[in-house]
Amino acid sequence: MARAAAAGDSQHGPKWQARRQSIIDTSASVFSQRGYHATGIMELCAANDLGKGALYHYIGSKEELLAAIHDRVMDEVMIGADRVAESGGSPPQQLAMLGEELLDVIHRYPDHVWVFLHEFPALTGERVEQFRGPRREYERRVEAILQAGVDSGQFRDLQPRLTALAWLGMHNYTYLWLKAGGPLSAHDVAKPFAEIFMRGITNTAEG
Amino acid sequence: MARAAAAGDSQHGPKWQARRQSIIDTSASVFSQRGYHATGIMELCAANDLGKGALYHYIGSKEELLAAIHDRVMDEVMIGADRVAESGGSPPQQLAMLGEELLDVIHRYPDHVWVFLHEFPALTGERVEQFRGPRREYERRVEAILQAGVDSGQFRDLQPRLTALAWLGMHNYTYLWLKAGGPLSAHDVAKPFAEIFMRGITNTAEG
Repeated sequence: MARAAAAGDSQHGPKWQARRQSIIDTSASVFSQRGYHATGIMELCAANDLGKGALYHYIGSKEELLAAIHDRVMDEVMIGADRVAESGGSPPQQLAMLGEELLDVIHRYPDHVWVFLHEFPALTGERVEQFRGPRREYERRVEAILQAGVDSGQFRDLQPRLTALAWLGMHNYTYLWLKAGGPLSAHDVAKPFAEIFMRGITNTAEG
Repeated sequence: MARAAAAGDSQHGPKWQARRQSIIDTSASVFSQRGYHATGIMELCAANDLGKGALYHYIGSKEELLAAIHDRVMDEVMIGADRVAESGGSPPQQLAMLGEELLDVIHRYPDHVWVFLHEFPALTGERVEQFRGPRREYERRVEAILQAGVDSGQFRDLQPRLTALAWLGMHNYTYLWLKAGGPLSAHDVAKPFAEIFMRGITNTAEG
């Protein structure tokens, strides 16, 4: 799967890319405070200190901006999942690592995650699949780790789909209270969460 | 805490109340599909087959409607929590029962929960506290059960606040995929979730 395939990436230099990223980040913050629908183009212009023409030059449309906010989060989430897959650790180690990676992204991008989780119904056309595809792929990664652990006998005989949804809920829901600059680091949360979840699914039959 | 203190409850008969409830439910469905901000009063009138004056007679304002959607879910959640508190069960029994109660509400009101979790930033003034108060109270109930289990030695020495947030995330997040009429009942989900969580926090030091 291609990562970070933002529109026009190949046609523009690093300065343009950096400005575009900063517009995406600023706009995520505006959307998370006021909502996607309630935010007009003029507000986005003001927040980014750009005229309407200049803003469109970077983002194309409001919906493209929403898709770009999604990509920014999901690309990082998938890069983390790739790192975990390449680590070659045991299923328990991989699941713990995946939790650390996921909470690290949520911790760094609370506004993006808020917009990502709340405003995705506004996406239309092929952007719906652009949103759903990586989400499904990530869910499959979690399920695969769980199944591998069942196969190896390290995890008890669980329902991989429901267990993956439990794990995802526990971690994803942190976007409501886990913020960069807050009292808790991503690791402060990932560690006790992994402890709960790992004990919860570890096979204790053999002792 | 007063439950179901909807505006004007005491001044109107059961027929008015029933019609109001049905307007709240229909509007929750419209908001969950189109978003609170994007939905105009005229759309709410059309969905409820009412003129503007008649609609305002039942709901007062769009924001009051949002608060009423919140109350409808949160009242039921708190009634469930009261039942659990009155059951007199052990902390593990109470936590399992609380999960069943919570998933039952989410399963019955997916649209309300969607609106509740996504649109609460639109609440203003005293409605912010009306939203936050019961949420905090519910979180405290979860923490209290966890603490009671630690005190009784049935749960291991855990962090009650973070553990409550893990439990809440795991259960609340089901609103994205657990729907009435879907393949899974609330119990189908509550049972394996309780199994994961209970093993995750049970004290195994004594055997």
